[in-house]
Parts: sequence; structure tokens; C-alpha cells
Amino acid sequence: MKTLYVIKIGGNVIDNSANLHAFLEVFSALEGSKILVHGGGKMATQLSKTLGIEPKMVDGRRITDIETLRVVTMVYAGLINKNIVAQLQLHHCNAIGLTGADGNLVRAQKRPVKEIDYGYVGDLHETSVASKKLGALLEEQLVPVFSAITHDGNGQLLNTNADTVASAIAVAMSADYETSLVYCFEKKGVLADVNDDASLLAEIRSGDFEALKSEGIVADGMIPKLHNAFEAIKNGVKDVYIGKAGDLAELATQSFGTRLLS
Amino acid sequence: MKTLYVIKIGGNVIDNSANLHAFLEVFSALEGSKILVHGGGKMATQLSKTLGIEPKMVDGRRITDIETLRVVTMVYAGLINKNIVAQLQLHHCNAIGLTGADGNLVRAQKRPVKEIDYGYVGDLHETSVASKKLGALLEEQLVPVFSAITHDGNGQLLNTNADTVASAIAVAMSADYETSLVYCFEKKGVLADVNDDASLLAEIRSGDFEALKSEGIVADGMIPKLHNAFEAIKNGVKDVYIGKAGDLAELATQSFGTRLLS
Repeated sequence: MKTLYVIKIGGNVIDNSANLHAFLEVFSALEGSKILVHGGGKMATQLSKTLGIEPKMVDGRRITDIETLRVVTMVYAGLINKNIVAQLQLHHCNAIGLTGADGNLVRAQKRPVKEIDYGYVGDLHETSVASKKLGALLEEQLVPVFSAITHDGNGQLLNTNADTVASAIAVAMSADYETSLVYCFEKKGVLADVNDDASLLAEIRSGDFEALKSEGIVADGMIPKLHNAFEAIKNGVKDVYIGKAGDLAELATQSFGTRLLS
Repeated sequence: MKTLYVIKIGGNVIDNSANLHAFLEVFSALEGSKILVHGGGKMATQLSKTLGIEPKMVDGRRITDIETLRVVTMVYAGLINKNIVAQLQLHHCNAIGLTGADGNLVRAQKRPVKEIDYGYVGDLHETSVASKKLGALLEEQLVPVFSAITHDGNGQLLNTNADTVASAIAVAMSADYETSLVYCFEKKGVLADVNDDASLLAEIRSGDFEALKSEGIVADGMIPKLHNAFEAIKNGVKDVYIGKAGDLAELATQSFGTRLLS
């Protein structure tokens, strides 16, 4: 089985152009099939502010109204996505920038309205990702670069969580590829002591997760992150890496950040 | 040889959402391989105005400064392109939205500075279009939808004339496809009397072009349009149609607008 990396970067990489360029150069050099998924960053918030669009919040949760959807479509699928693609081309990485609407590659459903109407937000399900079509692009030596905009198949674009898009793609591609899912964030990985990079846990097995939680080594925002990672592994993903974008070169020796395994 | 339509729409279709939706439905139903190229429309100008970006003009020509490039990348490659793709998906047309940077499909060079510095504007040349890669997408039953943003291969996006992008794609694809280039504009086609749709010239041969010019039947803005069309034909395109977006269904019977032939 061929190998595949599905790598997700967020605002902390995108908002700093020096970091982003350094990351894209290392990403370009990474051998084998790969897919990049990027989040948004601050640019959409800044543009919304400049355009006088008030952030809509309900119970502390951000709502994607039609105006905000227009902004994120412009910023994520246009400005950020196409500049990433152009940068990758500079490094001879044949990137192709996509949303979930393109090639019907990631189809979502608008989040049902319960207590909160989140607006134009997409949720993914088991058959969201058109893995065969996406595989055909990989076979063409193309490197898909996804912004986290999806569609519902009925003409509506939807704002979607980038971590979720990356995970859904990795799970779906696992049918045909030995797939590693890689989350880049601001820390070196899972740290036993959050203030000490030397306390990095190089590897966590799913069986260790409960113990790490009860010992308080994994806490707060890291709990749902790891939970979702182990869910992806349970659904076919070979391993999940969590680490710092700037360390990406270490993926080649499997020493990047924290590696999660079944 | 397989047939291919390369169809270009401009602001007059894009700015009217009822027209656009009607056009996209007919486009979806068109059989065989097809590529859509879209221009900009008024949205970029409106957004620039809202953001307080002054249009830069030199000798009456519009300049694409770095701020304007950001706006057109957001509006053309993001907002317009992805909404067109989502609409086409609704009609079961498996569209994939692209710029020239994606897949390195259309590489341009920044227009050299002579009397005027046009800024981030791309000019195309004979080897601009990666026709084999684009053909591979068509073979995957995908329908490429291009905004007129290209790149220079060195990480720089460039604003490019949509008519020129459509023509360059049609010429390049003619090596492997029997290619028809279709320009949609606001009139039914070339009219002997501009005020009378019934005076439509159904067909113009390249040999008739000089006579039509000297008789004044083809005048003003139509002269460069037809000149470029006949250049495309000289360079391998089978025929060029010029007509109204709303009449597109007539392409199937080759009775759309004015047909230009060698």
C-alpha cells in the first residue's frame, strides 16, 4: 500500500508569513503523496472588521452568517489558498488548491438548527469524502491543498472546521493508502510539562490515553485533540502526529512531535 | 479526436445572479468535455471601493497594484469561482475551480514595464498552458472552471485578461482535442445592424473579415475581438463562437451566435 500524509496547518502558521514560507518549503521537500489542509487565521476576522461585519455570537459560539460566509470564501478559498499554491509551485511542488465543492471532493451537510443556529456551517459524515476522485488527483502527481470550505451538493458553500476536514480526508483515504494524519500546532507535541519542550512524549498508544488523562498529563484542550486523533486511528488511519510546523522535516524519520498509535 | 468546448463568460453574466444561474444550468447540460473561463464583474470594484482602495490609473489604463491583486484573488478565485463550482455541482456537473497556479496549469510572465507599469498583470506565451495536465483532469470527467488569475512560477499570482486565458487554453488544447472556443457577451453575435438582432451574421470565414471591416459592418470593439478569434483559429482552434450567454443551448446544434471559421 502506498503511503500518504494528510497535514493540517492552522492560523499560527498562516498568520506569520516567514513561518508559512519556511513550512511550505519543508512541505514541498517531503517525499511521497501528500495533502495539505489549512485553516483560516486572523485575516478573515480583520477583513470582516474592515467591512463592518459584526461578529455574530450565540452562547459564546461564533455564527457563520451569509456575510461571514462570503468573507471566509474570499479569504480562505481565495487569498490564502491561492497564495499557498503559488508558493508551493515556486518550490516545484505541483499543488492544486481546492474546496470541498471542487470535484465534489468533500460534501457536508448544513449543521441542523437545535438550540443554536450556527448558520452556514458544514458537518461531515462517513461518506463526505470522494476518496477515489481525490486518489486520482494524487495519481496525477498533484498535491491537493484544501481550504476548509465545503458544500452541500445543493449549491451552498459551507464553513467547516479544518481539523475535521483533515481527519475525514485521512480516514477516507486510509482505504487505499497507509495514511498518516499530521496536526501542526504551536507546541512541540504533547508535553508532560507544558513549560518544558524536553518533556515531549514521543509516542502515545491508545491504551495509555486513559492513564495520561487521569494523571493530568493530558488536560484541557489537548483531551479532545487526542480523542479525535485516536478516533481517526480506530477508523483506519495508521498514525497521527501532533507537533510544531517548524519541525515538519522530522516526519521523514518519524521523530516529529508526538506520534499517536493504536 | 475528441471534442472540447472552452467557454468564456464575463461580467455581464456574473453580475446578474439570475442570468448566471440560468447559464450554469445550460452549461451543465452541454455534452462532452468542456472548460469554463470566467472574468470578474463589478464585485471586485465594489469591494475595492468599500476597502478604500483607490483605483490606480495610468494613461487611462487600470493598474493592478498589490492591494488590487489581493482583492481580485479574493473575489475572482474565491467568491465567484467557488460559488460557480457549487452551483455546477447542484446540476451534477463535476466542476473543479482553478487558477493558473493550480497544477501549474497556466503560467504567465509579469508584463514588462515600458511606458506604463501595469503592476501584477500576467501576459501569456506559447507554452503557458500545461495542456497534458489539463487533459488529464478532463479524462477524470472533471470540468475545469478557471478564474483569470495566473502565476509566474516564482510564487507570484498575476491578474490576467480572461479572454486571453480562454484563447490560450483553447489553442493549447487543440493539439489533443477538436476545440471550439466560445465567447459569451451581451449581444446575440456579430450583427450587420447593431440595433437589429435579426441581422445576425451566422457565420464569418476568415477570408470575409477584411471585406466586413472595410464595409464597416465589423467596427469598433468588435474588430480586436474577431482579430483575436481568427488568430486562435490560425493556431489550431476549430471554430470560435461569439454570442449571448442565454443562447448557449444552441451550441448543440451549432446555431449559437456567430460562428467564425478558417
